[in-house]
Amino acid sequence: MGKSMLDLIDECDKFPYYHDNPAFYTAHLKTYHAFKVNGCDAILGYILNSIVDKFYWPDGWTIDSKNQTVTLATPADATPEQRSKVVADTLAEAVKRESFEILKGWRNERYPVYGPGGEYLLEIERSASALFGIVSYGVHATCYVEDENGLRFWIPRRSKTKQTYPGMLDNTVAGGMSTGERPFECATREAMEEASLPEDVVKANATPTSCVTYFYVRDSRAGGEVDLLQPEVEYIYDIKLDASIIPKPGDTEVEEFHLYTVEQTKQAMANGEFKPNCAVVFIDFFIRHGLLTPENEPDYLEIVSRLHRRLEFPTASHATR
Amino acid sequence: MGKSMLDLIDECDKFPYYHDNPAFYTAHLKTYHAFKVNGCDAILGYILNSIVDKFYWPDGWTIDSKNQTVTLATPADATPEQRSKVVADTLAEAVKRESFEILKGWRNERYPVYGPGGEYLLEIERSASALFGIVSYGVHATCYVEDENGLRFWIPRRSKTKQTYPGMLDNTVAGGMSTGERPFECATREAMEEASLPEDVVKANATPTSCVTYFYVRDSRAGGEVDLLQPEVEYIYDIKLDASIIPKPGDTEVEEFHLYTVEQTKQAMANGEFKPNCAVVFIDFFIRHGLLTPENEPDYLEIVSRLHRRLEFPTASHATR
Repeated sequence: MGKSMLDLIDECDKFPYYHDNPAFYTAHLKTYHAFKVNGCDAILGYILNSIVDKFYWPDGWTIDSKNQTVTLATPADATPEQRSKVVADTLAEAVKRESFEILKGWRNERYPVYGPGGEYLLEIERSASALFGIVSYGVHATCYVEDENGLRFWIPRRSKTKQTYPGMLDNTVAGGMSTGERPFECATREAMEEASLPEDVVKANATPTSCVTYFYVRDSRAGGEVDLLQPEVEYIYDIKLDASIIPKPGDTEVEEFHLYTVEQTKQAMANGEFKPNCAVVFIDFFIRHGLLTPENEPDYLEIVSRLHRRLEFPTASHATR
Repeated sequence: MGKSMLDLIDECDKFPYYHDNPAFYTAHLKTYHAFKVNGCDAILGYILNSIVDKFYWPDGWTIDSKNQTVTLATPADATPEQRSKVVADTLAEAVKRESFEILKGWRNERYPVYGPGGEYLLEIERSASALFGIVSYGVHATCYVEDENGLRFWIPRRSKTKQTYPGMLDNTVAGGMSTGERPFECATREAMEEASLPEDVVKANATPTSCVTYFYVRDSRAGGEVDLLQPEVEYIYDIKLDASIIPKPGDTEVEEFHLYTVEQTKQAMANGEFKPNCAVVFIDFFIRHGLLTPENEPDYLEIVSRLHRRLEFPTASHATR
């Protein structure tokens, strides 16, 4: 007996739901401080109390232990650059003090944080985003072939030396969106970097088909401190390829790509071979393509809702108009 | 300026969310009694306090005004038939007393109610389901043609004499699932009844592609008392048809079907011509087929989550194994 589809959802969408047990949820929230920015009412993320204690908070922050808030105390009309500077200085100090394991995986990429109405507030170094529990954004593209041999997926295995989830199966193309980047732009960039797929091939064959959203709680496989929060939005693309087009690793992040049948993919999912959020993207594909149905999947309704969690933080708008 | 896509979602998914304003949500819940069944912990629906007052509750019910619960007081080990009998007798009395406008639309169809783990608890006459605020289940199938003339949808207009949403635009095929029915079985039955599509055509061309879930609050267009609750699950099918296959009304519920282009469909949506949950099903189609994208729809993330609301009541499992 391997993992069920719902088991795989549970591994990725792990933060409790209020309605499942309001008392438990309310008590659980006490283990976090809310991350806020002066001048903005919304809660932008949850920071573990143990992380709040370990941080050296220089001037520019207000820590309210009673209300359990950590507020970036820049002026209400500060610019994103001013806010980001305080965060960057605070993180530089944390790196110097070696306060956090997770910052040893410094990426030198910045993730944006949005307020209500999608207002861009500030940016945070990627490896620090889970310390603050902010929403992060990325893309996943599933390349597949559908011909007389049936439906098959191009699946890579992550390098055994990769910091996070080493040796696990991945989606054909996946990556995080840095500040200023838009979903399709990110998908085409990553398709070239990770799978050597040229932009014209992606443009001709990719369909944006929704997004998955979930509230991940990091475990040891993610590297760094455990129990850090990582609410995520992953924009999803289906890329149907002719069998003659073969993705090739464009960097050292993955080993080779192999074609997996639906049954082989399901088996690898049941074996726990996939990075958790990649398994979830395959579940979404299976549902949209009629491979998982209300009649063959007992947890169908729970799965569909959990794939599209409404996060309790403000989120971005990536519209260009 | 017509209705935006998010406006259309708001019209269908209308019940407040806890996280948007916990204090408001908690106060709002006080306007309802929770519907429960003895022997089962879960809340199965919300009944407006004004409806609780107007009901004549015979023996067999426990009304707790302090805790605001209405409990079907059958023995904990009662059978579904025993529970359904008490409900049916209570409704027969309500009809005799002419207590509720909505029961004048008596359907003589029974909707099932499920407990935790998908346990079948009882059934309730369809027209009474919104009095109890229970989750109802249905199917929506979108028939479309995609050829050299582009993508077009087969869209019917509801009869002007129909009780609910008269004269509004509808989905090609849509219907409620009665007790014992399964999603695809319901889709094929309704496709014949409403659009004269034979079972073999549906089987050959339909793809189950997820479901939409939302928490509807009835307004005057729905007929009967307003503000009644109707949390719904609609299983979704895409049916791609050859242009030679023309749906024809099989009953008097709709007038003729017409082919609408994507732009015509969007315009009719913006004009508010669609029955609210049909507009939502088109939004889901547009997202899955790449017609609404993160780059062209400013409310993309909110829309995707709201299309798949995790209802706060137990739901069914329609799996056959």
